[in-house]
Amino acid sequence: SGCNTTKCGIICQAVMMSDVCVFVPVSPAAERLRYILGEDDDMPNPTLFTEMDTLQQDGDELEWKESARWVKFEEKVEDGGERWSKPHVSTLSLHSLFELRTCLQTGTVVLDLEGYSLPQIVDEIIERQIDEGMLSPDLREKISFVLLRKHRHQTKKPIHRSLADMGKASGGARSPGAAAAFNRSTEDLRMKSGGYGRLRESLSHHLSRLRNKFMKKIPRDAEASNVLVGEVDFLDKPFVAFVRLAQATTLGGLTEVPVPTRFLFILLGPTGKAKSYNQIGRAIATLMVDDLFSDVAYKARDREDLIAGIDEFLDEVIVLPPGEWDPKIRIEPPKKVPTADKRKSVHSLNELGQPNGTAGGSGGHAEDEEMPVAHELGEELAHTGRFCGGLFLDMKRKLPWFPSDFYEGFHIQSISAVLFIYLGCITNAITFGGLLGDATDNYQGVMESFLGTALSGTVFCMFSGQPLIILSSTGPILIFEKLLFEFSKNNGIDYMELRLWIGIHSCIQCFLLVATDASYIIKYMTRFTEEGFSSLISFIFISDAIKKMMGSFKYYPINTDFKPDYVTAYKCECLAPDPMASMIFNGLVPVPTDNTSSLFGLNITDLDWSQLSKKECVKYGGSLVGNTCKYVPDLALMSFILFFGTYSMTVSLKKFKFSRYFPTKLRKLISDFSIFMAIMTFVGLDRLIGLKTPKLIVPTEFKPTRPDRGWIVLPFGKNPWWVYLASFVPALLVTILIFMDQQISAVIVNRKENKLRKGCGYHLDLFWVGVLMAVCSFLGLPWYVAATVISIAHIDSLKMESESSAPGEQPQFLGVREQRLTGILVFVLTGVSIFLAPVLQFIPMPVLYGVFLYMGVASLSGIQFWERIKLYMMPSKYQPDFPFLRHVPLRRVHLFTLVQIICLAVLWVLKSTVLAILFPVMILGLLVVRKMLDMVFSQHDLAWIDDILPGKDKKKDKKKKGDKDDTKKKDKKKGRADDSKDKVRNVKIYCHQLAGLEQKKPG
Amino acid sequence: SGCNTTKCGIICQAVMMSDVCVFVPVSPAAERLRYILGEDDDMPNPTLFTEMDTLQQDGDELEWKESARWVKFEEKVEDGGERWSKPHVSTLSLHSLFELRTCLQTGTVVLDLEGYSLPQIVDEIIERQIDEGMLSPDLREKISFVLLRKHRHQTKKPIHRSLADMGKASGGARSPGAAAAFNRSTEDLRMKSGGYGRLRESLSHHLSRLRNKFMKKIPRDAEASNVLVGEVDFLDKPFVAFVRLAQATTLGGLTEVPVPTRFLFILLGPTGKAKSYNQIGRAIATLMVDDLFSDVAYKARDREDLIAGIDEFLDEVIVLPPGEWDPKIRIEPPKKVPTADKRKSVHSLNELGQPNGTAGGSGGHAEDEEMPVAHELGEELAHTGRFCGGLFLDMKRKLPWFPSDFYEGFHIQSISAVLFIYLGCITNAITFGGLLGDATDNYQGVMESFLGTALSGTVFCMFSGQPLIILSSTGPILIFEKLLFEFSKNNGIDYMELRLWIGIHSCIQCFLLVATDASYIIKYMTRFTEEGFSSLISFIFISDAIKKMMGSFKYYPINTDFKPDYVTAYKCECLAPDPMASMIFNGLVPVPTDNTSSLFGLNITDLDWSQLSKKECVKYGGSLVGNTCKYVPDLALMSFILFFGTYSMTVSLKKFKFSRYFPTKLRKLISDFSIFMAIMTFVGLDRLIGLKTPKLIVPTEFKPTRPDRGWIVLPFGKNPWWVYLASFVPALLVTILIFMDQQISAVIVNRKENKLRKGCGYHLDLFWVGVLMAVCSFLGLPWYVAATVISIAHIDSLKMESESSAPGEQPQFLGVREQRLTGILVFVLTGVSIFLAPVLQFIPMPVLYGVFLYMGVASLSGIQFWERIKLYMMPSKYQPDFPFLRHVPLRRVHLFTLVQIICLAVLWVLKSTVLAILFPVMILGLLVVRKMLDMVFSQHDLAWIDDILPGKDKKKDKKKKGDKDDTKKKDKKKGRADDSKDKVRNVKIYCHQLAGLEQKKPG
Repeated sequence: SGCNTTKCGIICQAVMMSDVCVFVPVSPAAERLRYILGEDDDMPNPTLFTEMDTLQQDGDELEWKESARWVKFEEKVEDGGERWSKPHVSTLSLHSLFELRTCLQTGTVVLDLEGYSLPQIVDEIIERQIDEGMLSPDLREKISFVLLRKHRHQTKKPIHRSLADMGKASGGARSPGAAAAFNRSTEDLRMKSGGYGRLRESLSHHLSRLRNKFMKKIPRDAEASNVLVGEVDFLDKPFVAFVRLAQATTLGGLTEVPVPTRFLFILLGPTGKAKSYNQIGRAIATLMVDDLFSDVAYKARDREDLIAGIDEFLDEVIVLPPGEWDPKIRIEPPKKVPTADKRKSVHSLNELGQPNGTAGGSGGHAEDEEMPVAHELGEELAHTGRFCGGLFLDMKRKLPWFPSDFYEGFHIQSISAVLFIYLGCITNAITFGGLLGDATDNYQGVMESFLGTALSGTVFCMFSGQPLIILSSTGPILIFEKLLFEFSKNNGIDYMELRLWIGIHSCIQCFLLVATDASYIIKYMTRFTEEGFSSLISFIFISDAIKKMMGSFKYYPINTDFKPDYVTAYKCECLAPDPMASMIFNGLVPVPTDNTSSLFGLNITDLDWSQLSKKECVKYGGSLVGNTCKYVPDLALMSFILFFGTYSMTVSLKKFKFSRYFPTKLRKLISDFSIFMAIMTFVGLDRLIGLKTPKLIVPTEFKPTRPDRGWIVLPFGKNPWWVYLASFVPALLVTILIFMDQQISAVIVNRKENKLRKGCGYHLDLFWVGVLMAVCSFLGLPWYVAATVISIAHIDSLKMESESSAPGEQPQFLGVREQRLTGILVFVLTGVSIFLAPVLQFIPMPVLYGVFLYMGVASLSGIQFWERIKLYMMPSKYQPDFPFLRHVPLRRVHLFTLVQIICLAVLWVLKSTVLAILFPVMILGLLVVRKMLDMVFSQHDLAWIDDILPGKDKKKDKKKKGDKDDTKKKDKKKGRADDSKDKVRNVKIYCHQLAGLEQKKPG
Repeated sequence: SGCNTTKCGIICQAVMMSDVCVFVPVSPAAERLRYILGEDDDMPNPTLFTEMDTLQQDGDELEWKESARWVKFEEKVEDGGERWSKPHVSTLSLHSLFELRTCLQTGTVVLDLEGYSLPQIVDEIIERQIDEGMLSPDLREKISFVLLRKHRHQTKKPIHRSLADMGKASGGARSPGAAAAFNRSTEDLRMKSGGYGRLRESLSHHLSRLRNKFMKKIPRDAEASNVLVGEVDFLDKPFVAFVRLAQATTLGGLTEVPVPTRFLFILLGPTGKAKSYNQIGRAIATLMVDDLFSDVAYKARDREDLIAGIDEFLDEVIVLPPGEWDPKIRIEPPKKVPTADKRKSVHSLNELGQPNGTAGGSGGHAEDEEMPVAHELGEELAHTGRFCGGLFLDMKRKLPWFPSDFYEGFHIQSISAVLFIYLGCITNAITFGGLLGDATDNYQGVMESFLGTALSGTVFCMFSGQPLIILSSTGPILIFEKLLFEFSKNNGIDYMELRLWIGIHSCIQCFLLVATDASYIIKYMTRFTEEGFSSLISFIFISDAIKKMMGSFKYYPINTDFKPDYVTAYKCECLAPDPMASMIFNGLVPVPTDNTSSLFGLNITDLDWSQLSKKECVKYGGSLVGNTCKYVPDLALMSFILFFGTYSMTVSLKKFKFSRYFPTKLRKLISDFSIFMAIMTFVGLDRLIGLKTPKLIVPTEFKPTRPDRGWIVLPFGKNPWWVYLASFVPALLVTILIFMDQQISAVIVNRKENKLRKGCGYHLDLFWVGVLMAVCSFLGLPWYVAATVISIAHIDSLKMESESSAPGEQPQFLGVREQRLTGILVFVLTGVSIFLAPVLQFIPMPVLYGVFLYMGVASLSGIQFWERIKLYMMPSKYQPDFPFLRHVPLRRVHLFTLVQIICLAVLWVLKSTVLAILFPVMILGLLVVRKMLDMVFSQHDLAWIDDILPGKDKKKDKKKKGDKDDTKKKDKKKGRADDSKDKVRNVKIYCHQLAGLEQKKPG
């Protein structure tokens, strides 16, 4: 109080000028906030767009030039004057905030002014200042003149140029015309009916259309706050005004975008301090876009409310030490910003009266993860105890979504997803078809594989509980069929009929599992099991892709001894067998029916052996002699190039989304279609070079692969009666196999991280898998079950991200396009592929193996287990900031990972043996291992590493949440109340402490 | 003043408790700082290492547990308790800073305490508090007990474990032994002579050795400040003490590392506020590592000085708005932190009395770029006007460095550099040797190329002004030789003798240029010309590498019609010519001398034509018949795989430096040896597959390529006398060519960005190039000149980075290992290569082309021109934050880039024609174009884009700086003074403004 103003520091000022002390909730300032914000806020305030204009001399004319803008983050006009900076976090100085505080205390604050035009508003402010004796009346004209200068906004160059040029060209002459109209735009507002006005409006309409791109970033109901700062030579003390209009009004050319203005902050001061004014302007602009302060600004009743708002803001700011940070660095907007709800809740709730005595850490898991709809594993897998209770619940849950499952599929992204998954599916169908054909002596071949995939997939995607799951043949099933075929062949049992009965039994067993809600046991599966399973499947994918690729080096051996100069020495000739042998051979071989061997009608010795192909030569008993017979040039290396090229191009194009080149949309498109583009590129390359690389061959005729079987398998007649009953036993194995495979894949697809809205349907899924088992058995088609890797790829290709709203805000992962359309299309296309053979025959197999490799690698990323493996190779200071690393000792994390690795290694070895058929049982083994880990690791550690579902511990609270949308809001309110209780408690403790700290003043 | 303490907010408190107001330099607080910091600071204060320990309950025992530490940035012990967080910028809350301020005002501040052990210090503090009535005497024992609890530091697990276990096992029994000794370590300090003490010391010695790794991060003379915060149940108000010891003393186990403690901050308070205490502890710790505050802390005379230090700190903090940043995010340390010098200079200089009236922007180029030694282009290329003035200056400049040019070469990095550059050189030697051989009918072949490279390179690296430059054959020279050879052949002039005379003339002309300091014209070269030239050379490298690669598809055509099944149909036979033709042929062919054609002695019809190789067949006039004759399998594709593999492996390994895996050193090693490792890998792969890919073939016999020439070219006798004079004219062309090529490359090598310390020597370089011209001409070897791309690669492979001192600090680029050793070794190795043929023959050429491609691409990166080209494809919001983009309109930048692109395109087209010989003249054309740009672009824009050397504008100021090290310091002081003048001016303006803002208080 005895402090001379010129000598007094900022903090000192700030406090002395405020009548009350601030910052502790029980102070009057906090009470103010509580009062303001405590009002019923059914109508949230509009978002504020803030524009800061500075006064600048352009030639001999003054004008207001846009220098920065805020939607949420700051964008500055660069010094060059033609460029927006990247959106960045506004870094302020404490100075400017305190200066701003002083400004608001000393300047004019007009709240709810009835303003309809800028000149009128300016008049009003000046009048008030003169009335209060803050401004001498002879400055009235000068200030008014300055404040009504035209505003030049930062726009795309061409427009800006032309307008500015127009303005310059005719500005002096004041001739009627567009330029003058633009120049004096603010005055013209009053005469809206005049010719100028109309012209101006058409101009601004034109402009706003061109600025459309930026408009999209501003919410529809936004209002503007305009900050005007500048230095003038006729003032000797600052002229400050803060205005809130009663109604948001479009004040002509004041704002860059056609958004009505609600707030106006004016700071004019004596010359020489432009930098300081700028900082104050930035401070108020930053405050205006702060969620809480803008609330305060909308609801403030007087000057002190605003000051209280600033104080609250100051209370929450984050401070960087000057020695550790360079203020020139522009800080990129963070991925996620804390909501202002917490800050608001302290003030908006009146539960202050209930002191909560319990102290203690408020740490622990973040509670504010919002799930779009409260669906939890625990609930959907609950054991209802009723017959088919789960199944009915599933149907009840999924039915309302059924129509949207179709119309939500119409999106460009779906096309890329369909192409991607389709290629995966037919590759799988061909691969497994070929293998099954070998294993079952063509009882089930490529044709059956295609038909089965198409049929099962379409039906499943149409009716299942989780249509994002893709059905496919899987390894364990293949092994089972192989063993089964060998068994029947050795024991004289008809394979197809036996298989039919196993299918029937298995189907019935599935129904039993469905009826008894047996799927509920899946909920005992933790991240440990789930990730172990999916990693294993991914590794199998990767190793298969590489193995198949390496196979081409075996099928097309390279002649490494080839010396270009001795090309004359290389040949391979077909020599006729000696006559004796050929006679015997002649008698043994059945007469071939195809025309290539019409030669065979002749005597064997008459054959022109040198004209025969390799196959024919072998066929007719000729011997291949020569040093090139076993070599195939170029094909192996070309295959490798295609394989590796497809893989790496896909990876690079996927990453292209994060590059700096081209607009976001284009990059996203490229990234979405990366696989398609990579395939097309390498199919093109293959065509260009023209080598006979192995191509995709799909069957073209619609008939069973083995001519002696029909399309329907009859249940009776070929096997003795007891076989029908005994097939119950192998069926049990198949059922376990299918159950585990299907449900674990479903758990992975339904992972919390995928943010699925429409819920899942484990029982319904299993029901349809059972039905399809039976149907496929009757038709003699392979059995199908959920394929983990392709399903994950399906989900990945359908991920949605928010269009970022404010510039600089990170797009958020919103969820997955949940619909049935892509799945159905994929499988219909698979079915139709039989007719697409002419197109598909151009696709080389190595390209498809490249796609396989990509699928395997991509499904590994995002698995925490994989991230943890990588940790082994990182020195701890470079490890990423995973939440579990902050809370669990690295040693424990490594131990946990090691256990997982060992489990996988054991499984990997087992699956390479005949024991593979016990694969699902081994997954159960994983569950046992996990259970034993409870003894080694503390529950705290497991909660972080193994991500025990919160639903498990907190089922009671969450149950209340209910499963309908409308109850959600209430709960959120409740959560907020809890928060605020905590906060209030903290504040109380803090008060006590302050009191303690304070009792002793320095002598 | 009428404010009740329990209701009063932080700011209020902070101010009311201080007797004086703060923040404006004329205030008493600022005067204090000026007084303290203005003292003679010849002895800089030691760096402070700060450790914060918190009081924790471990079982039933209290202990101090390390919770964070600061060298420059904060490292926190993660919640798991076994892990250091990454170093990060300390984000504080304003709260805690104000609370800290209160703490220092209310607590005990003891400065220059004579302390020798912790118990004694603690006793002293408690005594004072009791004396001042701040503490009731009955708490003495309790506080002392708590403060003397043992300290547990965050160390590597095994040590920590064993010690803790030992402590636990015997702590209760107090049995004599290591554990008890450790437990009571602080007490034991007094009885240093005792057995316990010795044991303890050996233990701590053991520990410190194990913590060695962290010790390296702390400067040798560092002192520690210890922060102890905790909550206890027996206090009802906080116990606060700040102690500065008169002498830094090792206080036993107080500090993690064996660094003596200077400062001690203790905060004990009532329970329930641990979080708040923690924040206060973090605040004081952050302050202690702040450069300016630590100065204040060392020099403070009383409590108020400390408070003034905090106020100065608060004045400079950077504030992040709560709505735009999540305080939980740990901010990575910035690349560069502003020095505290500026902040200090405001206070430390007494020039406050000189008001500096001129206002205005202080923007513009950053002035504080420190060049290790002030050597500037302008100076070294000055026109001395004396005969050989420049040459003598060069020699004078380089001579003192000569010894260090050798011993500084002994470093592991040199090995990788030598290998890398060696491979580049021999590849170049072979390529150009082959081409020269073709062009000159083997007068100069691969052998001459090797010898010439070795000779010229060794001499140049030994004696030149800039030994980092690598000499090599270049394209223009090759074209000149080709034209010259054709001319002499057509006109019956002896090529070698003519060439010798041209060499002699050119050498003399070079000497003339050296004597007249003609190299000074190079200083008119700007970034435009320089980057244009080097980009062109890079593009030529890249296109040559790709062309050569593609060549293998031409040399080894792929048989794309090959059908594996019809392998029997492919052959290539050598058929005998019809007898008539063979007779004629027989007569024409000279009798071959090599044994492969000993068959030739027989009658030609007796030849077994089918046994002949392709070459022999053609040689003897046979005809090759068959469909595989023109094809070579596998080699082309294999070459492609080797080429592309080498390139991409090198790129990925180079990037590996920035990955998170493995310790920094290993990553750096991998990155340094990336090229070597890539080459080894693909040489290995090539060996493994065993295909006959084209290999590197070096000559093995030491004799001229053409048998009819000797090693010395005689100057007279073969050509008429006038040729000796007339060769002056072509010599002029060669001189221009060599001058431009040499000096532009030298400019690029001597770029400011490379931070060369030892200066350059343009005149000396040219002198030696001239000498070598003459020598090579006499020996009939090719001429050599600086090769841009390889020289850049040489520099890149010798770059040094600082070992970062504080954790989290970014390593700085320090400069280049300037020495002659690597260059000499490269060329000696090149010479020896003739004997290395058995090893080198395993290297496939495509691998070397891959290395070439990498060299070309790598030399493009870091060229601003290239960065600007990339800008075309980036939407402006994604463009990187280049300084020139902040100041020059994008349109202008694009225009400038476009002009450059057009120039390069024209040059590219010209160089593909015969005009290539005029290449150096065309570079002069670039200078003209650049001159014309002055008319299109403003000087401001050019200063940013074309990077006009500051030396040009500010030569006068900088000249003063002198060229010796010892004057540097003075200048730095002067710079600081300038800064501070500015600062003082700003502060004054700011004061005025405040006064203005303040005059009106709210009614």
